[in-house]
Amino acid sequence: MRIVDIIEKKRDGGELTTAEIEWFIAGYTDGSIPDYQAAALIMAVFIRGMNRRETVDLTLAMARSGDQLDLHDVAPFVVDKHSSGGVGDKVSLVALPLVAACGAPVGKMSGRGLGSSGGTLDKMESITGWSPDLTLSEFKRQVAEIGLALAGQTADLAPADGKLYALRDVTGTVASMPLIAASIMSKKLAAGADGIVLDVKMGSGAFMSNLDQARELAKVMVNIGKDAGRRTTALISDMNQPLGYAVGNALEVKEAIETLQGGGSAALWQHAVEVAGHMLLQAGKAETLADAKALATAARDDGRAWEKFRQLVAAQGGAVAEVDDPARLPQAKLVEPILAPADGVIGAMDTAVIGWASVKLGAGRMVKGDKIDHAVGLIMPRKVGDRLQMGEPIGFIHANDADKLAQARDEILSAITWSDEAVEPLPHFYGVIE
Amino acid sequence: MRIVDIIEKKRDGGELTTAEIEWFIAGYTDGSIPDYQAAALIMAVFIRGMNRRETVDLTLAMARSGDQLDLHDVAPFVVDKHSSGGVGDKVSLVALPLVAACGAPVGKMSGRGLGSSGGTLDKMESITGWSPDLTLSEFKRQVAEIGLALAGQTADLAPADGKLYALRDVTGTVASMPLIAASIMSKKLAAGADGIVLDVKMGSGAFMSNLDQARELAKVMVNIGKDAGRRTTALISDMNQPLGYAVGNALEVKEAIETLQGGGSAALWQHAVEVAGHMLLQAGKAETLADAKALATAARDDGRAWEKFRQLVAAQGGAVAEVDDPARLPQAKLVEPILAPADGVIGAMDTAVIGWASVKLGAGRMVKGDKIDHAVGLIMPRKVGDRLQMGEPIGFIHANDADKLAQARDEILSAITWSDEAVEPLPHFYGVIE
Repeated sequence: MRIVDIIEKKRDGGELTTAEIEWFIAGYTDGSIPDYQAAALIMAVFIRGMNRRETVDLTLAMARSGDQLDLHDVAPFVVDKHSSGGVGDKVSLVALPLVAACGAPVGKMSGRGLGSSGGTLDKMESITGWSPDLTLSEFKRQVAEIGLALAGQTADLAPADGKLYALRDVTGTVASMPLIAASIMSKKLAAGADGIVLDVKMGSGAFMSNLDQARELAKVMVNIGKDAGRRTTALISDMNQPLGYAVGNALEVKEAIETLQGGGSAALWQHAVEVAGHMLLQAGKAETLADAKALATAARDDGRAWEKFRQLVAAQGGAVAEVDDPARLPQAKLVEPILAPADGVIGAMDTAVIGWASVKLGAGRMVKGDKIDHAVGLIMPRKVGDRLQMGEPIGFIHANDADKLAQARDEILSAITWSDEAVEPLPHFYGVIE
Repeated sequence: MRIVDIIEKKRDGGELTTAEIEWFIAGYTDGSIPDYQAAALIMAVFIRGMNRRETVDLTLAMARSGDQLDLHDVAPFVVDKHSSGGVGDKVSLVALPLVAACGAPVGKMSGRGLGSSGGTLDKMESITGWSPDLTLSEFKRQVAEIGLALAGQTADLAPADGKLYALRDVTGTVASMPLIAASIMSKKLAAGADGIVLDVKMGSGAFMSNLDQARELAKVMVNIGKDAGRRTTALISDMNQPLGYAVGNALEVKEAIETLQGGGSAALWQHAVEVAGHMLLQAGKAETLADAKALATAARDDGRAWEKFRQLVAAQGGAVAEVDDPARLPQAKLVEPILAPADGVIGAMDTAVIGWASVKLGAGRMVKGDKIDHAVGLIMPRKVGDRLQMGEPIGFIHANDADKLAQARDEILSAITWSDEAVEPLPHFYGVIE
């Protein structure tokens, strides 16, 4: 095969064969196909698209480009979840302990913050000593022993995805449906999940800003999962405002702890129990979604889910004393309210701007390698549809630098659109694709 | 500016600004924009296209990416020609001496063989000692002294074109109208020509295999030339059979010599005098094309053109004794006929296959750096429409290796389509675009 022939075929809108796709991924992974030829091909893929079979082939080739986990020696059926990324999305911190507490083993590879979205690993690292760096055997042993492990992506799983993602990032080829779907799903397949729940976010703080796009991405990913023989369910959920009330690492851990203990915002609980319910259904722990959610709710109510979270912290070296007394988690020096500039109803939020405001406070990375300040972030309890009076707090900024605090306040105020009339609250979910 | 923004704009079908195009070419030339980003952008350009203004901007940016020749201190108006490449195309060897002999200075940068097409420099190097390696001052002095210089492309002229061409070659982005046009015209503009005659080939041995494509390419190039303030004329000419009868380096030099001395094939003479006529018109040496062609014909008939060719050989170190006695040019050891396999009329020729047959004999390069055998090649005097009897020679193979000779014979026979009925001879030209 010749890479130029493959590039020209896709350039002219042709359909690549399974063999061509496998040969490209193998060659790109081992370096025999250079970046510039891969860049030309993925631009052609971006513009010309890929059909369902091509997308599945691409995903499988990427999943097979490195090590593939097989967890069946420690658990008969392992479930995983993936979020397409959002602001204040700490659903994994609540849903995973719920699922594991109900007896469905969870072995999850998580990521770090990207753009305006936080990352589960960054959040968990707010807890002193907690580490996502597990060897494969540690990961397996932990799934066997406590039914829950949360590791970082390793370069050994789906290395083709790591290379391709870095290339897409600098060649204007990120926002391609087949490439996004293959990137997400290749990692999930390589990590050995039997069941996968996809939380596809839609809205001003999400990668997909309209419902049609989000549905299409969800559908492509569910098709890939099914064609690869995995139980796969996608939820389309709202990201037109921060999820729950906390944005920022330690602040989100605290909200997750409250929620596991029966408190926290209703929105976060509803989101987490929905995700957990679908994971339990996939694992065969219940016959109906309602039954599955009832199981998860019971695991919260009797303290088993909270205990599972404590086990997760302890097993990966975290200071359990800090989660038992969240006041011992990192605290920002400055906490100031953001006040409503006039009477009015919150009509809309530019959620990406709010996410970036938190990143700039130090909760995320502006450039690769930036050190994260786990204490800083936002508390944003007021939502679209809420009526406020002038001077009433919209939320609070947790900062360690007065200038950054002032900048965050300006940015958050600029991100809010006010209405004089009543505004409908936003839904949590827009649908399920199975 | 950010290169990713420019890539995304073109990816989505947008129009790049002059500043964006100039910034890209400057950055790609100095290496600050890497190959993989350039590859993504040119694939987007390939698929989405460029309008006339963008194409002109691209060409001018490439022309200005390195040194630019200004020959006005040695000649008030310099003419140049370009052929899009073909099999047996030795028109430059005849037309340039004709034009120079009529008093219009010619300063031409020529290329080497590419694919199935021969190159003017390779042909001239059949003459012992002749060299295209002129310094800028040698080039200028020769234009001033004898009105004719023929040099190789230097890396200092339009270096962006050299880099982009090499990248296009390996990324499936060669056959793009704006990129082809910008590549050709940027070199012509940088080389300082005031008038440019473009010989755009169409047919089975040409880059453009249909008339619409050839016309479009011609039109784009003429527009660029005009917008850049140069007199520009394009001829669309036939390449559905070898031009003239010789294919291969020394064989083509011999045919050119015969033609300059009043012999040779009528087809080559008609082609060369047409090109020369347009060059003389641009240079203001005649009022009408007919007058210009009459001037060129007179320069052949009274021996001035032949003398100009001898001066060109001598000025660049070539052995004049060899062109005075062409039997002293390189001769192949084996010369064998290709015999008609049955009675019939030549209906069509796959001219690229014929060109490749000559390349494989050693007349061209299969891979970069291959050494050329100047002696070998083909004599193909029989043309589309000619009626042959079984066993009559279609042509002759000049080879230095019996196996290669046999292979060339098979390939040439496979390239010819026979007809039982009469077939119209092919035209020389399909039109002029000014």
